[in-house]
Amino acid sequence: MTLNIGIIGLGLMGGSLAKAVKRYGIASKVYGFTNSEKNKKDILDLNLVDELVDLETLKKVSDVIILAIPVDAIISMFPNFLDIDENTTIIDMGSTKEYIVKSIPPKIRKNFIAAHPMTGTEKSGPKAAIDDLYEGKTVVFCDLEQNANLHVNRAFKIFQEIGMRIVVMDSDKHDIHACYISHLPHIISFSLANTVMSHEDPKSIIALAAGGFKDMSRIAKSSPRMWSDIFKQNRENLLKAIESFENQLDDAKEMIKNENYENLEEWMKKANSLHEIL
Amino acid sequence: MTLNIGIIGLGLMGGSLAKAVKRYGIASKVYGFTNSEKNKKDILDLNLVDELVDLETLKKVSDVIILAIPVDAIISMFPNFLDIDENTTIIDMGSTKEYIVKSIPPKIRKNFIAAHPMTGTEKSGPKAAIDDLYEGKTVVFCDLEQNANLHVNRAFKIFQEIGMRIVVMDSDKHDIHACYISHLPHIISFSLANTVMSHEDPKSIIALAAGGFKDMSRIAKSSPRMWSDIFKQNRENLLKAIESFENQLDDAKEMIKNENYENLEEWMKKANSLHEIL
Repeated sequence: MTLNIGIIGLGLMGGSLAKAVKRYGIASKVYGFTNSEKNKKDILDLNLVDELVDLETLKKVSDVIILAIPVDAIISMFPNFLDIDENTTIIDMGSTKEYIVKSIPPKIRKNFIAAHPMTGTEKSGPKAAIDDLYEGKTVVFCDLEQNANLHVNRAFKIFQEIGMRIVVMDSDKHDIHACYISHLPHIISFSLANTVMSHEDPKSIIALAAGGFKDMSRIAKSSPRMWSDIFKQNRENLLKAIESFENQLDDAKEMIKNENYENLEEWMKKANSLHEIL
Repeated sequence: MTLNIGIIGLGLMGGSLAKAVKRYGIASKVYGFTNSEKNKKDILDLNLVDELVDLETLKKVSDVIILAIPVDAIISMFPNFLDIDENTTIIDMGSTKEYIVKSIPPKIRKNFIAAHPMTGTEKSGPKAAIDDLYEGKTVVFCDLEQNANLHVNRAFKIFQEIGMRIVVMDSDKHDIHACYISHLPHIISFSLANTVMSHEDPKSIIALAAGGFKDMSRIAKSSPRMWSDIFKQNRENLLKAIESFENQLDDAKEMIKNENYENLEEWMKKANSLHEIL
């Protein structure tokens, strides 16, 4: 069984997915749709899809439609799918899941698969698309009990065949996990970058940057547009996670202030133990 | 001119230096000294040095002595060098510089070169030593005006020949820079790791970890013993840097709390701009 796959949004996530489904022979044809005039040329130059089409065409020709756009844009797209065929699968790849699932119109709830491939880079746009973005990574599917089997099976098939490990989870639990593993680290990385940029002489500081700083500031290159939406949709979990992180940092600060280095070492040993799991 | 080089401490930094000076033919002979019985076997098995010797022997046979031990241990070693020959160069590779330079006994101030190679990994011990740790990285030398030329020239020669870029800086300025580029990122990474470890179910969170989290938590694997000393010696700068970082994170938190996403995007764009320099 090969499928006609329509991808909406052909940046890092959508573009890399287009490459993957082609490479693994999952798609008979890959259609693309983008609102961005700027990206259209890149998408065609890079040969990411077989054809760029308008939205109505994409809806008609696709067995599976993939939403690879910012999470608020996913919500805005819903009204366009109310007339979709019941055999058409829609899959969103947003980084938040609870608000998206709650907002799916009942009429298309059976068709609509909520997915989050836990992968990415700090880059964005069609030129950021890479061959092996999904290879060996994890995809989380949420609240599948409300989906028809046809659509679940297609989604599993696609993500398994491009080399992903499948995890199934409730959307509220997903959002807490994604918050600690991804959304909190992003807000921390942005904060670290801004701490250095606010210093009187960022250039001479950064001239000394080695691996540790580069790793810690890499995701501070990420798209503000995309991340603003994610922070918005996962706002409550994120505020709690920031507070929990601030408590840890405050503890460390107090131990340093009070020159309590013995406890500080114990605290660092606890942090080391993360890597017995990771 | 080849030199007899004696390295005190043969973990990640000292062990990798031993490999580098051998590989580039800078040392006629590499002597090693360690206090750790546990490490002696590894050092010999890995063939890191030509000979492990006692401290008095190492002092006599070495043209250059390198201190690759935790920063507090560097200070504790000073009394052992009071009888050193005036032609023997001593180089410390500690991550802090101001307190070390202030503590050097006047008698050996001319011999003693304060250096900080801006490189490392999260690993420690002789087995962590790698071939190319110093290749293409930056080494900072501090307060060289108090050193004799013989010793400055030797230090430059060694670090240049193993492929490093040399930067010269006052020790107080170095400690501020190293704080933002390395010490602050470490305390943040330890805090992030402990935030996740303090969650009720760290295992199922970490099961979803992708590149971002792995990068952000990598240096939380670092040695508590070594970092406790660094945080202690750079305490005042670190407390200021933590506060500056906390202000940034608080700003972000307030914007998210108040749903001020427009300003949040501007704030993230500022963070993005770091990478025009880095």
